[in-house]
Amino acid sequence: MEDLKALIRDIPDFPKPGILFKDITTLLKDPRAFARVIDSFSQRYVGQSIEAVVSIEARGFVLGGAVAYRLGAGAIIVRKRGKLPWKTHKVTYELEYGTDELHIHQDAISPGQRVLILDDVLATGGTVSGVINLVEQLGGRVVECAFLAELLFLQGRDRLKPAPDSAARRTHPRACC
Amino acid sequence: MEDLKALIRDIPDFPKPGILFKDITTLLKDPRAFARVIDSFSQRYVGQSIEAVVSIEARGFVLGGAVAYRLGAGAIIVRKRGKLPWKTHKVTYELEYGTDELHIHQDAISPGQRVLILDDVLATGGTVSGVINLVEQLGGRVVECAFLAELLFLQGRDRLKPAPDSAARRTHPRACC
Repeated sequence: MEDLKALIRDIPDFPKPGILFKDITTLLKDPRAFARVIDSFSQRYVGQSIEAVVSIEARGFVLGGAVAYRLGAGAIIVRKRGKLPWKTHKVTYELEYGTDELHIHQDAISPGQRVLILDDVLATGGTVSGVINLVEQLGGRVVECAFLAELLFLQGRDRLKPAPDSAARRTHPRACC
Repeated sequence: MEDLKALIRDIPDFPKPGILFKDITTLLKDPRAFARVIDSFSQRYVGQSIEAVVSIEARGFVLGGAVAYRLGAGAIIVRKRGKLPWKTHKVTYELEYGTDELHIHQDAISPGQRVLILDDVLATGGTVSGVINLVEQLGGRVVECAFLAELLFLQGRDRLKPAPDSAARRTHPRACC
């Protein structure tokens, strides 16, 4: 989807020197492009009994809310430290530029629930690996991880492959554009 | 919608002592309740030519993405200081517990666009007053402000009334439950 890609704006040196930031606000504000993105995600997962769409603070929430609504699923939010008010599980994860903590409410997912994880950009895969960990701590089954865009040169996709000695419980991530 | 209200969890003393925090994650994770909320917003605004749905970091994004998709509008995000990567306009606003800055990208809205502002909870009205200001700086027309819930005792609604000497360019806020 080359035309979607063209709507993502590159911002050099944000949030730190040397980082080329992918600004998706220019895509989200375009009604047709935004609808195409949500429809594209939804078409892949409709009929797959997704019960919960987990999205990651903060841009991921825009996508997660829309896809959860479209699929008739619950919208679950994973947030940074200090943001969720109730009892949480947490993981520490690596960013492309540092480390941080992610939290999920302990009642966010029921054991056995079929979960789609959604975020805007797949970079190193550090963030989403942490989220998979959180969902699995709660007994959720990660059906797939999906992204609006993928930074291929960071090879985050490799990090999300199932370990050779495990059942292939996760397919590879999907990127929309 | 009493049954929706029952799905919002009260958290005492969060984020500070004396604050009773309204935790909407318990509602968002319920597929039927989440769909009812989004349908309720959408039914009110469908046919009103809403071109942009502006939502406020971070919980508001979950609602804003879904309603923007449902209405065929663009999804616009208003964020805290340092989060938006491109050129912004900003306002300083009062919270129930302190002050903060809100930013919007300078190209987020085109002059004359019909805008719906959406957030999870109407408290003092300080946040949403700031967002109205940002939208109007860009020439957007605020059709209405809508909320999932309203803390009536804080009377934020009064703050959003049009000034007596202005044209009634905004209706009162709407709360879903």
